[in-house]
Amino acid sequence: MERGGTDKLQLKTVEQIGIVVKDADKVIEAWSSMFGIGPWTFRDIGGADAKGRSWKARLAFAYLGPLQLELIQPVEGRIFQSRFLEEHGEGIHHLGFHVDDVDGEAARLVAEGAKVLFAEPGRFAYMDSSGPGGVIFELIKRSS
Amino acid sequence: MERGGTDKLQLKTVEQIGIVVKDADKVIEAWSSMFGIGPWTFRDIGGADAKGRSWKARLAFAYLGPLQLELIQPVEGRIFQSRFLEEHGEGIHHLGFHVDDVDGEAARLVAEGAKVLFAEPGRFAYMDSSGPGGVIFELIKRSS
Repeated sequence: MERGGTDKLQLKTVEQIGIVVKDADKVIEAWSSMFGIGPWTFRDIGGADAKGRSWKARLAFAYLGPLQLELIQPVEGRIFQSRFLEEHGEGIHHLGFHVDDVDGEAARLVAEGAKVLFAEPGRFAYMDSSGPGGVIFELIKRSS
Repeated sequence: MERGGTDKLQLKTVEQIGIVVKDADKVIEAWSSMFGIGPWTFRDIGGADAKGRSWKARLAFAYLGPLQLELIQPVEGRIFQSRFLEEHGEGIHHLGFHVDDVDGEAARLVAEGAKVLFAEPGRFAYMDSSGPGGVIFELIKRSS
């Protein structure tokens, strides 16, 4: 799927555009009204980080054709995207790609100089390319 | 096409992701090698702004399926994207959508409270939604 003859990662399709926002409801209201984007579904997630500090986030999803828009709203504590929000303000945070082997692809990219910014083994890995461009690529486990 | 029964804009497909970069060649080298993105085509553009100051930019395009990636590198003078580069650094600048009537859609969005950030009548209009989310939507004249 995502590999060419050289056994290199070959990203073919952007599956997700991740956008960090301060208030998902306000964004949804504006974008639904002005641009006809929707319907939206929601997922509230939360947990505790490695130091036991609790965090909560609200996710909202809509599709433009096959492409998923993901709004990410930090609600409590610090999440991975909090730093982006502080440094850049609201905006497009990452492009997401489905791969079969998240951990393997991430490890191979690290060997080429990329960095794992945040990951949950087997499920997703946010990568920078350790180079120019300023774009975060998220490798997401392909649903089977 | 982009209109529903209510005569409202209905964006259905993201056609372009625009990314502001400092050095398109370096980005292309990294993304080609690590992520298999390419081939790339180039377009060097330039002109003079309203005050007669010359500007140049280099654009580079690649496709991921039907979705166009556009790298935008300011080369000389100031272009619309220069401010984003200064304030945010390299990163994803806009999502682009094809519409039949750029000027008409832009005018309608302005009536709803959006702002035109930069436009060339009949060809494209970069809009903010004058609201939350921090994402620039570019309306691009659909090729017939």
